[in-house]
Amino acid sequence: MLENKAPGKDISEEDLLTKFPLAAKQSPDHRSKFTIAGVEFGSDHVPVFAGPNMVENKELIIETAKAVKASGADFLRGGAFKPLTFPYRSEKYTETREDGLQWLADAKEATGIPVITEVMEEKYIEPIAEVADILQIGTRNMQNFPFLTACAKTGKPIMLKRHFGCSIRDWLGSAEYILIEGNEKVILCERGVVAPHTHRSSSRFLLDLQAVPATQEMTHLPVVVDPSHATFWRPWVEPMALAGVASGADGIMLEVHPDPENAAVDPLQAVSFEAFDSMMKKMDAVAQAVGRSVL
Amino acid sequence: MLENKAPGKDISEEDLLTKFPLAAKQSPDHRSKFTIAGVEFGSDHVPVFAGPNMVENKELIIETAKAVKASGADFLRGGAFKPLTFPYRSEKYTETREDGLQWLADAKEATGIPVITEVMEEKYIEPIAEVADILQIGTRNMQNFPFLTACAKTGKPIMLKRHFGCSIRDWLGSAEYILIEGNEKVILCERGVVAPHTHRSSSRFLLDLQAVPATQEMTHLPVVVDPSHATFWRPWVEPMALAGVASGADGIMLEVHPDPENAAVDPLQAVSFEAFDSMMKKMDAVAQAVGRSVL
Amino acid sequence: MLENKAPGKDISEEDLLTKFPLAAKQSPDHRSKFTIAGVEFGSDHVPVFAGPNMVENKELIIETAKAVKASGADFLRGGAFKPLTFPYRSEKYTETREDGLQWLADAKEATGIPVITEVMEEKYIEPIAEVADILQIGTRNMQNFPFLTACAKTGKPIMLKRHFGCSIRDWLGSAEYILIEGNEKVILCERGVVAPHTHRSSSRFLLDLQAVPATQEMTHLPVVVDPSHATFWRPWVEPMALAGVASGADGIMLEVHPDPENAAVDPLQAVSFEAFDSMMKKMDAVAQAVGRSVL
Amino acid sequence: MLENKAPGKDISEEDLLTKFPLAAKQSPDHRSKFTIAGVEFGSDHVPVFAGPNMVENKELIIETAKAVKASGADFLRGGAFKPLTFPYRSEKYTETREDGLQWLADAKEATGIPVITEVMEEKYIEPIAEVADILQIGTRNMQNFPFLTACAKTGKPIMLKRHFGCSIRDWLGSAEYILIEGNEKVILCERGVVAPHTHRSSSRFLLDLQAVPATQEMTHLPVVVDPSHATFWRPWVEPMALAGVASGADGIMLEVHPDPENAAVDPLQAVSFEAFDSMMKKMDAVAQAVGRSVL
Repeated sequence: MLENKAPGKDISEEDLLTKFPLAAKQSPDHRSKFTIAGVEFGSDHVPVFAGPNMVENKELIIETAKAVKASGADFLRGGAFKPLTFPYRSEKYTETREDGLQWLADAKEATGIPVITEVMEEKYIEPIAEVADILQIGTRNMQNFPFLTACAKTGKPIMLKRHFGCSIRDWLGSAEYILIEGNEKVILCERGVVAPHTHRSSSRFLLDLQAVPATQEMTHLPVVVDPSHATFWRPWVEPMALAGVASGADGIMLEVHPDPENAAVDPLQAVSFEAFDSMMKKMDAVAQAVGRSVL
Repeated sequence: MLENKAPGKDISEEDLLTKFPLAAKQSPDHRSKFTIAGVEFGSDHVPVFAGPNMVENKELIIETAKAVKASGADFLRGGAFKPLTFPYRSEKYTETREDGLQWLADAKEATGIPVITEVMEEKYIEPIAEVADILQIGTRNMQNFPFLTACAKTGKPIMLKRHFGCSIRDWLGSAEYILIEGNEKVILCERGVVAPHTHRSSSRFLLDLQAVPATQEMTHLPVVVDPSHATFWRPWVEPMALAGVASGADGIMLEVHPDPENAAVDPLQAVSFEAFDSMMKKMDAVAQAVGRSVL
Repeated sequence: MLENKAPGKDISEEDLLTKFPLAAKQSPDHRSKFTIAGVEFGSDHVPVFAGPNMVENKELIIETAKAVKASGADFLRGGAFKPLTFPYRSEKYTETREDGLQWLADAKEATGIPVITEVMEEKYIEPIAEVADILQIGTRNMQNFPFLTACAKTGKPIMLKRHFGCSIRDWLGSAEYILIEGNEKVILCERGVVAPHTHRSSSRFLLDLQAVPATQEMTHLPVVVDPSHATFWRPWVEPMALAGVASGADGIMLEVHPDPENAAVDPLQAVSFEAFDSMMKKMDAVAQAVGRSVL
Repeated sequence: MLENKAPGKDISEEDLLTKFPLAAKQSPDHRSKFTIAGVEFGSDHVPVFAGPNMVENKELIIETAKAVKASGADFLRGGAFKPLTFPYRSEKYTETREDGLQWLADAKEATGIPVITEVMEEKYIEPIAEVADILQIGTRNMQNFPFLTACAKTGKPIMLKRHFGCSIRDWLGSAEYILIEGNEKVILCERGVVAPHTHRSSSRFLLDLQAVPATQEMTHLPVVVDPSHATFWRPWVEPMALAGVASGADGIMLEVHPDPENAAVDPLQAVSFEAFDSMMKKMDAVAQAVGRSVL
């Protein structure tokens, strides 16, 4: 049998310090602390990001901004640039692009809630950075290194979603690409991984909550959990959001829509304003139980 | 392209009612309620099963029984019959078999705490059933149907662990094999599944907390979570136990050992008495936050 | 970060020699050689096992025995004892049990082809061992160690199927349980593993052909491939059977049925006599290309 | 239980025709036929792409071009732009970028062998398109849609590698993004997927040969197999390459290096000139056995 000295999926102590020196913890209790639009990260507060998958129209996003803010959300989320898996529009689904971005700006102005939205393409980084408080990098771009670098150079805070097929090692490598540009406000977000048994066809991903302590063991960066995309199924979103808070997540991202069953995208997973309001209270109760707070 | 009408992994409403009629919920809020050794299942109480992987010796198991009972555990767990993956003893590891079973009986008598232990072989069902309040069926036997039937016929309550490679469909099918014998005290236990990224070599499994609401959506049976075997890593046990409670689990199983780093088995995952006592308080706080209780 | 010295999934050279000493190769070109019912294993010949999933009736199995023998198959396969995932019969499916076993014996007597069939339960080992030339142990029993031991003690050759959720380490550990009883005629069989993307619901498993060289690197035991159960889809069986031969498999197991679309079990995957005959010629051609032979 | 009408991972006949109309087969025997630099795709010939992971220096790539051409390879492969998982150079590894590209051009000029190399970034598409006969799009960019579009617009033939975490549905969606630009010379390449058991740490991926017939069932595009990246282990490359040919793959991509054990990248998987020459003969023999040819 040949000897095998390949690195594999594990990250050794040495690996961590030489390949991920900026992402790596310097001591067991090392946690990044930073503030975005007045919201603290790395403190005992657990920020919540809420809103629709897509910024369908101006009224919808303003209404949602008001509702989620009233329930205690820290950030409004909503996608404007979001192509489908194939290059065709579905019956209901059309990216709203520049319009969507403007409506996000309108919602922010109308309510004062800070905004996070996904950047998909280098040429839109600048206009999006003018509106968004945090640039969201989606799974599909997690290892698009030139794009990571371009986003990092804006100096804007960045949420880096973990690709559904990638290891924590891959994820921290991508974070390192951002950190090396001097951009220290990096937020990691776990949103489900591929796994053999995901229970039903609609549930394409398995929320990997074990990744929360596993990642926090190695890095000082905050780790947010997104149960909406992982479960893809409304009835499981609340239990997984609560589990996320209990697992030690440093933030929760949720899809909220005024009329979930008629949402243009992901009608099976978005929750209503009422459900969100109720979840916020429960998440806060769980957070309190582990020495943190949501509200 | 040929048409494909195979069942696949999903469970349709019709499937559920025709193939898993005894395990299936009859209504959305249908939950089994039963009592084992005075402990209620299916109520708002979240029972805890705690103890060492192996009943190494009499003193150890009595000491552990006292400690976990004092911290509020409902059941003492401990294995007596537990072969390794290969047919050799490791340096430290020897099954204690009949001796171990007797020591469990001694611990039960000394403290009054009810006992759960694994049954591995038909010929030991009877002697184990005389001592144990719950028969535990491990992953390796989850689809050993004649064995399930033999265990069921004892009338003893049964905990059925989910095989790490099996779907919920497979799991409910096995529960149905027990229920059809008229044995209604069946407890399901999720203890980690195989998945592409389990973070480190030692962590062979990924705790599938999404399975908690997914399974509860279909069955009235209680669903317990075992974070010790899934994470295989002490620092992740507490966060995953808390997440399990928050996800709605109907019980938590934990490995507890007086001297975890010198445990004969699983020294990387067992927690100390002090850690367990602290976890019980935190689990209770999380349970309270979701309208349940551990203590 | 704590140091992690757990074994994990890899098998080190030391592991191999201390935990799997009987299954381990003693030198790079070490291959087991043995003969079963006149068929050589461990030679350049690649034996083929063919027949229906279930021995539905006497006529069917005799007709199939004649057909597969005429096409060059070395063994007739067919299940008599084969419970479903749940304890109910499907519309078409009923185990034929003792009857099926007798029909297998009839087919063997009528044609002279040796027989392989699955053993599911200890009490049937003896009657099955009287008929079968090879005892097949299915995935569900791969880690049922007392059962492995009982089968091993018959002295009959054993085919050990790899559990769809188990590692090669687990598989070799189970082989070791058989070998330690002095039973040296152990055949390993890969039949698909769980994986995130198996392409369609019907295709529950992914045929792991990489396991062929990976397993042969460590053990001297023959490694057979079963593409029928893995692909669960007739059009993919032939390409995967040919790929199996090319990968170096030491045998191929196939489901063959006189009327595949009306087979009682697995109608989506069984192939017809004509298709089987054509596949045998192609498999032989591929085998010849890699220095081996099927016919 | 809520009704679930989400699409899931399967592709229905309707899905295929409405969402992937350009990638979809129009009839069961529909196969794309096109020629690149004189090499036919979609015919019975199975083209081979061979060369080092990285174009380390001019001498190495010219020497390799000569050797692989002499052994019958159709294309020289080699990477010039290839960042690591983290933004640091390893001890031996430095991207050779513009230099590497020039050396590829030199090798092409010196030997006449056509060239395939990976494009990682929009700004390098043009210079690379001037040298390369085929643009390779790696896993990390498989769903970088603006990038796919930009590559497609060059009119150059494109090899689209399947992301290790993506389904065939995702893969065909990305192909559709290229096809919709009028670029019809699209080659798919399977190079291993994430899976629970990949046998050893170094083997991060499992070569999914079942994807060959599964993909060919739906699309007319050629499907190439890359066993080097999947197995990440030299001894398994040959059996998996042969299995790839037998499975019906429309091309094979291999890492070949004059001194594999000292390769700057992937020293565990590259094969020597001698090994490659021997493999070509064996691959041709297997191809002949299934009615095709490599040489």
